[in-house]
Amino acid sequence: MADKVADFPSGPLDIYRNKASFNWKDMLCFLDGEEIIAFKQQVFKALENDPLFARRPGEDVPLEKMRELTFLRAKQLFCYDFLTKEEVMANPWKSITLSDCLGMYDWALGAKYFLNKGLFGPTIANSGSARHSKYVENTEDMTTFGCFGLTELSHGSNTRALRTTATYDPSTQEFVINSPDFEAAKFWVGNMGKTATHAVVFAQLYTPDQVCHGLHSFVVALRDPKTLLALPGVLVGDMGKKLGQNGLDNGFALFHNVRIPRENLLNKTGDVTPDGRYVTPFKDPNKRFGESLGALSGGRVSITRMALVNLKLALTITIRFSATRRQFGPKNTEEIPVLEYQLQQWRLIPYLAAAYALEHFSKSIFMNFVEFQIGQMMREKSDRQAEMGREIHAIGCSSKPLGSWIAQRGIQECREACGGHGYLAMNRLGDLRNDNDPNCTYEGDNNVLLQQTGNYLLSWLHAKHRDGVRIESPLHTVDFLDDSHKILESRFTARMMEECMDSAVPLAAYKWLVCFLLEESQKRLEQEMASGKEEFEARNNSQVYYCRSLAMAYIEHNCLQRFHELTTDTDTPAGLRPVLSKLCALYGLWSLSNHMATLYQGNYLSGRKPTDLVQMAILTLCSQLKDDAVALVDVLAPTDFILNSPIGNADGQLYKNLWSTVMQGSQVLERPSWWKEFCSDKPVVGSLRPKL
Amino acid sequence: MADKVADFPSGPLDIYRNKASFNWKDMLCFLDGEEIIAFKQQVFKALENDPLFARRPGEDVPLEKMRELTFLRAKQLFCYDFLTKEEVMANPWKSITLSDCLGMYDWALGAKYFLNKGLFGPTIANSGSARHSKYVENTEDMTTFGCFGLTELSHGSNTRALRTTATYDPSTQEFVINSPDFEAAKFWVGNMGKTATHAVVFAQLYTPDQVCHGLHSFVVALRDPKTLLALPGVLVGDMGKKLGQNGLDNGFALFHNVRIPRENLLNKTGDVTPDGRYVTPFKDPNKRFGESLGALSGGRVSITRMALVNLKLALTITIRFSATRRQFGPKNTEEIPVLEYQLQQWRLIPYLAAAYALEHFSKSIFMNFVEFQIGQMMREKSDRQAEMGREIHAIGCSSKPLGSWIAQRGIQECREACGGHGYLAMNRLGDLRNDNDPNCTYEGDNNVLLQQTGNYLLSWLHAKHRDGVRIESPLHTVDFLDDSHKILESRFTARMMEECMDSAVPLAAYKWLVCFLLEESQKRLEQEMASGKEEFEARNNSQVYYCRSLAMAYIEHNCLQRFHELTTDTDTPAGLRPVLSKLCALYGLWSLSNHMATLYQGNYLSGRKPTDLVQMAILTLCSQLKDDAVALVDVLAPTDFILNSPIGNADGQLYKNLWSTVMQGSQVLERPSWWKEFCSDKPVVGSLRPKL
Repeated sequence: MADKVADFPSGPLDIYRNKASFNWKDMLCFLDGEEIIAFKQQVFKALENDPLFARRPGEDVPLEKMRELTFLRAKQLFCYDFLTKEEVMANPWKSITLSDCLGMYDWALGAKYFLNKGLFGPTIANSGSARHSKYVENTEDMTTFGCFGLTELSHGSNTRALRTTATYDPSTQEFVINSPDFEAAKFWVGNMGKTATHAVVFAQLYTPDQVCHGLHSFVVALRDPKTLLALPGVLVGDMGKKLGQNGLDNGFALFHNVRIPRENLLNKTGDVTPDGRYVTPFKDPNKRFGESLGALSGGRVSITRMALVNLKLALTITIRFSATRRQFGPKNTEEIPVLEYQLQQWRLIPYLAAAYALEHFSKSIFMNFVEFQIGQMMREKSDRQAEMGREIHAIGCSSKPLGSWIAQRGIQECREACGGHGYLAMNRLGDLRNDNDPNCTYEGDNNVLLQQTGNYLLSWLHAKHRDGVRIESPLHTVDFLDDSHKILESRFTARMMEECMDSAVPLAAYKWLVCFLLEESQKRLEQEMASGKEEFEARNNSQVYYCRSLAMAYIEHNCLQRFHELTTDTDTPAGLRPVLSKLCALYGLWSLSNHMATLYQGNYLSGRKPTDLVQMAILTLCSQLKDDAVALVDVLAPTDFILNSPIGNADGQLYKNLWSTVMQGSQVLERPSWWKEFCSDKPVVGSLRPKL
Repeated sequence: MADKVADFPSGPLDIYRNKASFNWKDMLCFLDGEEIIAFKQQVFKALENDPLFARRPGEDVPLEKMRELTFLRAKQLFCYDFLTKEEVMANPWKSITLSDCLGMYDWALGAKYFLNKGLFGPTIANSGSARHSKYVENTEDMTTFGCFGLTELSHGSNTRALRTTATYDPSTQEFVINSPDFEAAKFWVGNMGKTATHAVVFAQLYTPDQVCHGLHSFVVALRDPKTLLALPGVLVGDMGKKLGQNGLDNGFALFHNVRIPRENLLNKTGDVTPDGRYVTPFKDPNKRFGESLGALSGGRVSITRMALVNLKLALTITIRFSATRRQFGPKNTEEIPVLEYQLQQWRLIPYLAAAYALEHFSKSIFMNFVEFQIGQMMREKSDRQAEMGREIHAIGCSSKPLGSWIAQRGIQECREACGGHGYLAMNRLGDLRNDNDPNCTYEGDNNVLLQQTGNYLLSWLHAKHRDGVRIESPLHTVDFLDDSHKILESRFTARMMEECMDSAVPLAAYKWLVCFLLEESQKRLEQEMASGKEEFEARNNSQVYYCRSLAMAYIEHNCLQRFHELTTDTDTPAGLRPVLSKLCALYGLWSLSNHMATLYQGNYLSGRKPTDLVQMAILTLCSQLKDDAVALVDVLAPTDFILNSPIGNADGQLYKNLWSTVMQGSQVLERPSWWKEFCSDKPVVGSLRPKL
């Protein structure tokens, strides 16, 4: 297999490539496998060969043009049809791979494509019934283009408080969709700005008896598919420029008593009869609410991966830059690559380790999610299925913060580590940061989501204390908490730096940490309740210390645990295990070092020795991994065309690529059009000086 | 005085404004004083009333147009002539105030204006002699426009390795300026892209005997001031789009044996006689090198302030947003402002405390710098003056990292804390982050600069150990290190949360911390040397642990020390001292909490009590300050026109302002120009599907 992967061009990066301790093609084959490698190559090649996808690094494209180009490219993806439904069923990982590939090119394109085909369509399929299948079919060939209208101008996180209404009128058998005022305008909806013909709109359902049955979703036509003009009563438009992902047209819609057929209610969780009676298969309205938002739960697992993709690109650019940029050196010798500096290693290589940890983690939780989804499709109603749902929810609500924040900080570190050249738009680190940023916010603000994970963990402790149940979950992410009592008695025992270079050391520390934070969170919550606070306030006041840290530690532990298992698995090729083990240990120690104070606080650590050992181990691992760093990013890197960053090209010709891109920019050497404003119309100094 | 400051319009922010524990106008008067308040108002009013400065929040301006607008606005500033030289001499703080005001409007404008008048001109004045005065004069009325050409494509931090040459030709009494290849092109030079007629160019000076005399600076004409066309032999152009500050035309220049008169050498540190002999008043070439880069040293102190200004704007936007954005609430009651959540307070209010700490700190170190500069102008050659130079250098090399990183992280936290609305370009948090970002890089990469501060501190310890000198510096930032032995015996002794709410507690901890890190850094360096490493490598390997942390702790201590003194000064109005004291304690504790592991490591802390106390004190202070938060940003805020962020307007009409700005955007409700591409030219699904 490895022979199907092309070699990189020879050049300045050879120095490091030749020093690598492992074969990068073997690593690529191990991580991706033959089918995925071939699929990626296929997608990358198609885009590179298509002039519609051509671009210049750092070019200044007006907003309107970016919207247009992204639309045209999304349309072209229908022609490419890289993945059929059958192919996805046969290998679900391919859908993530396609998302990776499109995202590596441009996230706005990926979003535009998947919001229609991967969110709008499936939401209707999952929340509706047979009568809605034409809407799903119409997304397949772009007969219609859809969007997902949940958030409003004044409500995002608190979805229950959304104010759009859908009032049933039995006289015409229609729902009347209405926005009570502009604060209830649907807002931030991707594809709604310019393109969508239809939206899934979430609204409070009212029956003619004026009873509100809570939030339901409806298919609402926004624009005439023949003209793209807004339909009567719909005020729909584009929100304007965002910090990033500007190819995607996020928009708003205000509904003035817009009438839609009764059948447009997505009726899986509740329906209205022609004469206006509300009927539902659910007894518990809370459960119904949960179901109607259920369509969202896969997203967070995917976003974890999306963030990782951004981090991979930033690291590829920055490690290659660092291996070829030379600055200073010992007296009277050649300057040395900045990657040789301990400080540069310490800034970058832990993020590289994190990328490898997240590579395995994001794949592994996706497979968990697939298992859960299959259960759903089988209409599995077992307790285990329900438990898995809760656990997947807790994982997604913390894996998204984990991934998006590591990426956000990592990209910023990369930007700074490339110095001024990192600040040049053509090198793409700015776009990566800006495009990654919303991963921290959409599908739930990271900080708000972490509360869900914290609550999940607390509920286990509660169940154990109250009902004496054993803590044991379908995916086993919480099983160790059952041994909490014993784990909390453990202490850091390493006495030599070499011991710490085994990921078992940070892993054991993490187990203690999660147990400790869980107990402390519970205590804080009890104290707050005991002081007479309502649950709402008591929970809020337990977040900073320690529910938030608890949720982060839980998911960091889980990520480390899975990576640790991979490195110790005998199925992992022997030639790769040494470097993977180092990456795993480094990720664990580096991640753990954010929690050192807590480890001391709870007496897991004491004295100065442990800190010294951990620090020395981190530096030693960075130093050992620096010669592997280029090969490690070679494994993660897309083609140069996709990476689109002159300083990150695979040939390592840093300055030639950079200079040539600069020189081919628009109007680079031209005199500015406004030259006369300088040359012939001089300012009269002080002529406008304000008088006090 | 306070009566000259207008009240804010009544609205949703009244709730918080009425709860404030202090009078915001008194705070404004205390911080700024009458003259500065009036001056700011004057500048803000002039810009607001001038149509050339009009803009729409979030508008999408093409790069070329931004360059043009910024140029025209910079030109208009000559007409406004807000500050004469005499006014700056009478009150140097006014020059910073003008920079603050222009930066609050747009940093690219401030940069464009000051790079010519504040850097190009003064560099010539300070590095040249009487024969260069016409160049300085010509910048005053825009007869010429200048830039500062130091960095090259392949060299930034290592300025000694710059490769542009200036070879003297006695036959014509000219210097020949040459770039040996494109890697030696001047690069990243602000104003060079489109506008500059002249540059100060740093080049290696060669006399006819082929001896290199090191880096010197020369005035080189780039473009004809009558046409703005490049002069023969000069390849000068625009680098293209950057991550931010796109109004400023950063550029490059490649010189092909460009001849300039002998007199264009800025000859303060060395000159060449007409017949080609090199003469210098300096004996030591190292000293000469230091002088020729001396022109840069003021910049870092200013950048500290620039970063702070960005943080102030971001906090103004985000605190006002948080006070008016409501989401969730206790059961069956109105939703509560997100500022009421402990988590939101903990995310934002420490940055507000940091902004107040940096407000005083940046002013205070600027005054130190002015004192130093006056000494230079007086040609003061005392040891004290030299010592002050070293100390100011150590301060600037760490205050810039301190300020720029707090701002960078703070703005990112603000962006996330505003959720989706923070991601909308019109709300400006993206521009603030992008415009602040280069503060981490220019005038020295933060990580590289911190080494200078670390070396300064180590040199004191060395001098004490070797020569038994007392550690005592002109600005007293290191004096406490002389008591290191005693300080290192101190321990954290607070037993009650209330005690920790006094900034004396974190201040004492910081003194211990700096002493500890200094000793550890010294030990690490000695170990490295003892193991046979060359000094170059030994120093590099001592950066992560602990020279870098040492430099940061030193400057954080100094910032806290100065703020602590302000809050305990009897000249500080009694009505303001309580809130300032809380801010000071919060800044100290929050900043210290990044170092808790080190405090445990060195046994300054032990057991769980100290961490509990510090955490409780932080939460309590945040909670106490949340009712003051709106008033605290009212003090820091510019006018709405300058702030230019609908969600941050002083009237607190969050949604009205946001909605109205969205609706007035360009082509908001219009059908896209490419609508036919959707409506009548449908993709054939799979028609381009790649074959394997």
